[in-house]
Amino acid sequence: MGLGERGGWDKSESRYCGVETEFEDDMPRLLSYNLSSSGFDFVVAPLMDPTYRPSLLEAENGSSHVLPFAGSDLVLSPSQWSSHVVGKISTWIDLDSEDEIFRMDSETTLKQEIAWASHLSLQILQGLSNMQLWLRIPLLKTDEDSLDVDSDDLRDSWELWNSFRLICEHHSQLSLALDILSTLPSVNSIGRWFGEPVRVAIVHTDSFLTNARGYPCLSKSHQKLITGFFNHSVQMVLSGKPLHNIPAESTGSAANHIDKNVNNVERHPLRSYLDYVGYLYQRMEPLSEQERIELGYRDFLQAPLQPLMDNLEAQTYETFEKDSVKYIQYQRAICKALLDRVPDGKESAITTVLMVVGAGRGPLVRAALQAAEETGRKLKVYAVEKNPNAVVTLHSLIKLEGWENVVTIVSCDMRLWNAPEKADILVSELLGSFGDNELSPECLDGAQRFLKQDGISIPSSYTSFIQPITASKLYNDVKSHKDLIHFETAYVVKLHSVAKLAPSQSVFTFNHPDYSTKKSNQRYKKLHFVIPCDTGSAIVHGFAGYFDATLYKDVHLGIEPSMSTPNMFSWFAIFFPLRQPICVQPGSPLEVHFWRCCGSTKVWYEWCVTSPRPSPIHNSNGRSYWVGL
Amino acid sequence: MGLGERGGWDKSESRYCGVETEFEDDMPRLLSYNLSSSGFDFVVAPLMDPTYRPSLLEAENGSSHVLPFAGSDLVLSPSQWSSHVVGKISTWIDLDSEDEIFRMDSETTLKQEIAWASHLSLQILQGLSNMQLWLRIPLLKTDEDSLDVDSDDLRDSWELWNSFRLICEHHSQLSLALDILSTLPSVNSIGRWFGEPVRVAIVHTDSFLTNARGYPCLSKSHQKLITGFFNHSVQMVLSGKPLHNIPAESTGSAANHIDKNVNNVERHPLRSYLDYVGYLYQRMEPLSEQERIELGYRDFLQAPLQPLMDNLEAQTYETFEKDSVKYIQYQRAICKALLDRVPDGKESAITTVLMVVGAGRGPLVRAALQAAEETGRKLKVYAVEKNPNAVVTLHSLIKLEGWENVVTIVSCDMRLWNAPEKADILVSELLGSFGDNELSPECLDGAQRFLKQDGISIPSSYTSFIQPITASKLYNDVKSHKDLIHFETAYVVKLHSVAKLAPSQSVFTFNHPDYSTKKSNQRYKKLHFVIPCDTGSAIVHGFAGYFDATLYKDVHLGIEPSMSTPNMFSWFAIFFPLRQPICVQPGSPLEVHFWRCCGSTKVWYEWCVTSPRPSPIHNSNGRSYWVGL
Repeated sequence: MGLGERGGWDKSESRYCGVETEFEDDMPRLLSYNLSSSGFDFVVAPLMDPTYRPSLLEAENGSSHVLPFAGSDLVLSPSQWSSHVVGKISTWIDLDSEDEIFRMDSETTLKQEIAWASHLSLQILQGLSNMQLWLRIPLLKTDEDSLDVDSDDLRDSWELWNSFRLICEHHSQLSLALDILSTLPSVNSIGRWFGEPVRVAIVHTDSFLTNARGYPCLSKSHQKLITGFFNHSVQMVLSGKPLHNIPAESTGSAANHIDKNVNNVERHPLRSYLDYVGYLYQRMEPLSEQERIELGYRDFLQAPLQPLMDNLEAQTYETFEKDSVKYIQYQRAICKALLDRVPDGKESAITTVLMVVGAGRGPLVRAALQAAEETGRKLKVYAVEKNPNAVVTLHSLIKLEGWENVVTIVSCDMRLWNAPEKADILVSELLGSFGDNELSPECLDGAQRFLKQDGISIPSSYTSFIQPITASKLYNDVKSHKDLIHFETAYVVKLHSVAKLAPSQSVFTFNHPDYSTKKSNQRYKKLHFVIPCDTGSAIVHGFAGYFDATLYKDVHLGIEPSMSTPNMFSWFAIFFPLRQPICVQPGSPLEVHFWRCCGSTKVWYEWCVTSPRPSPIHNSNGRSYWVGL
Repeated sequence: MGLGERGGWDKSESRYCGVETEFEDDMPRLLSYNLSSSGFDFVVAPLMDPTYRPSLLEAENGSSHVLPFAGSDLVLSPSQWSSHVVGKISTWIDLDSEDEIFRMDSETTLKQEIAWASHLSLQILQGLSNMQLWLRIPLLKTDEDSLDVDSDDLRDSWELWNSFRLICEHHSQLSLALDILSTLPSVNSIGRWFGEPVRVAIVHTDSFLTNARGYPCLSKSHQKLITGFFNHSVQMVLSGKPLHNIPAESTGSAANHIDKNVNNVERHPLRSYLDYVGYLYQRMEPLSEQERIELGYRDFLQAPLQPLMDNLEAQTYETFEKDSVKYIQYQRAICKALLDRVPDGKESAITTVLMVVGAGRGPLVRAALQAAEETGRKLKVYAVEKNPNAVVTLHSLIKLEGWENVVTIVSCDMRLWNAPEKADILVSELLGSFGDNELSPECLDGAQRFLKQDGISIPSSYTSFIQPITASKLYNDVKSHKDLIHFETAYVVKLHSVAKLAPSQSVFTFNHPDYSTKKSNQRYKKLHFVIPCDTGSAIVHGFAGYFDATLYKDVHLGIEPSMSTPNMFSWFAIFFPLRQPICVQPGSPLEVHFWRCCGSTKVWYEWCVTSPRPSPIHNSNGRSYWVGL
């Protein structure tokens, strides 16, 4: 059935809602009661009679017994089992029990239940053992104020999850089911879970408030949490007994009286809770067009471009040229530069020489000509491009637009070009997600030879930024390659299911032009991040990288989250993974080192953590990942 | 020249002593002054003029300069360079300097110096780049009492080393040179270093005291430290100016007046310090015969035996049979058992049936017969052995000794044998370094079928023990295999260069015979180790494992360090590595879990750490290491 329609987007798993049930050996009846007529999409149900204990059974009737599972595999179709039933491990199981017999019973039963669940799935998945295991824990973090340190009480359920996941080596089939309680931890603390593999949020009826009409509703902070989960494809499961007396007229004749044998359609006792969750789902803001486009790229690792070594393909140009916001910013910057170069009154006397280095298929040429028109300044444009394929398109564009008298096309690498005259303005778009990572500094060093001493570079500077993130999905994707190289590579990625653990900080800055004598494009930066205390402990899987560029004076462009240019889609963030995720305790600083290293044929980054505990230096000597010159 | 002779053993590197010198561009003169006539074996000397700065040189005379190294590679023979010179990186180098130019100078010079050192070595090593780098740090740890937490002062030099080594990923060519100061840290704190790759201890003249005759000597704790270093193949280097006024008569005519041009042989200013270090060396206890035999096995990883799956070789029997201490203990235990079975006065009436299960080539048969003779009890012996090769030797032994009437040889696996009568005493030697690791429990379960209800098993019980250790050499040897399997294997090893960080604790115990109905040889144990606070932080590379067995009543046998049987050499310890070494802060507990798991065809261990941070479960499902049934 689903929770209904959300504007513009109906593909996420989170539109399905489940309900937690007691053990019921008639599985078809359980399904028909909770699903068909009641509006839930799946049940979370025990698979085995909770009174079962292997040790008792053996004592009673020897070894020829039938395990007390909820129905045989044949009572439901394979697709019903896989789509509508989430098996729940018996809650009495305690694998760490001091009682030897109880512990052995627990181990035996756990193995039997998992084998049974696997058996049910195996029929469907034809031997692919990709059963997901969900660890169920409460969403809970008490404040550190209560100084009862020796208490064994659970203070921060994230710690429990973290231990379990580390012992299991970040197994990719291990996920989370979070119990949502009536009290929620701080926003920072909750934020951590958005970088973790949460599959299900179990909302208890006692977490609901009652609205003026007597119906269940949720607090503002609960609403915000649930909406966040919807946005991260987390499914809701409702659990518990109905605690709200729904006014009789709205629930039909048999309100508050459950009788499974009544023939007319029975209203499910949790129906009003389900309706409220559905209302929250439908009320969400529709996805913007950009969000819809980016949906398929979320948390998907891509190798960064190598635009110097490789020639871009037409499709890539096509995509990037559509980013109108970016070119509007460039046009604004060029306007301001033209006005600075040519004062009012001198418009007809002075022709500004503007060179687009890395002209591609011409979007910056167009922006420059539009800026000239807008400001009424005379312009002479050189369009320098090393990719001969792009030059072909550039030629036809110039002809089509009738720009032959204004624009000169130069098919040459800007680092090698022998310019016939010097430029007033040098315009380039060589920035990568991490600013300098597509070697803009090295390219512009080559190009600044033909910029006048007082000439202007657009961009005039750019800075990279990083911040520590929890990103279990990305980490597992990197880890799945089982080699060092992938752990020492930076990836372009549309970050979505991540937790940003501290504000980003600046890393490397480059200014253009730069005429200093001891100029070097090598860089080193040590950074200290402090994760807010109320976050609790958190795991750092790596660093999200961004850039911000000053095109000219106050015109900037960038993807650093706190000041990113709205509605620009040319760049996703960059992700620097850590080979071993690092746990950071509340209040303890995270010390990180980043290097930009330059060799004769390549440029690369190295990174490491030195506090709270040292990591190896990643990508030492550029052994795994580099950008070719 | 060396430090002289130590009784019984003169092969360790530590018999050579070096001296630290200033920069000297005449390397042959430096060597002849310090080595030939003065008694030192090598110099620790700067390779480059300390006034050199790349940035100054460039400014002066462009790029056609010669680097100011101490002599060309030709001034010494390759073997002189490699045996007598330890190159010292320029002390002014600061790679983290805030001063950009100084930092670049540092980087350039470091690279030049390492390249030069490599050049000197490469000639000798024919392309094998196995140059060792020594990190030089003081042996220093201040107490935590001084609560000036914000101070940047070095509190514990081990922390510095640990960070550096972690960043370098435990590189096997990275070692340590420790400066020994006049004040020493606590014994526990020093103990850590014996598990680290310390190559050199640099003793400063100002660490020496003055004895009654005016000569330099060292404090008791310094003496103990130096002796410890000698025992771990650490070389001494003397450093500093002479600070003792040696009485004139003993130093020749030119005492306290250094003139390199004086023709007659000059006494080296540090000679009296060298003599004292030589005295400490020669004074050491000679190695025992057992120590000499074990020398070649120190810190060398061996795969544990698989005596059930594989048949032992003659050489293996030969070695183990020589362990007379072990068989004396067995004989004592059998004596006591015989006296308990047959009271005085009944000697001639009762014949005790004794079965040796796993008789090998007969040492326990001999011990049993000697015990019978000693106690005057009548004995009937069954010698059960599954290895047909050992049975051949056993037959000839029986014949040779004339034991045909007393001993029956059974060529059979004890688990399958159909015994013609039941035994009073079952004697076995099936224990491995970790007690049950060679499957003694499973074998004796099979054998106890033919033990009388009130019969005696020798051994009657055994317990395994573990303790956390620092063992960088072992860790690097495991790591060198670059696979998971080796990190999840337990090794038999003569532990020597290790730091034992906390007293050992018991793990698993087995009792024989065991007639309980719910008997299982599966075991699980959770252990808490607390590293003494004055140790400081330490790294745990894994766990040393031992056993102690009760043969009968008060007769025991074992290798657990605090109660090990003296002069027994049959067992080395066992080593369980950790895939990622774990740093433990002072006072924080180390929580460890060990499992003994049994399948239908194999038995294996699993282990993990859960505090201070969780490790993966090692050898999950016995995927890497197991003992076949």
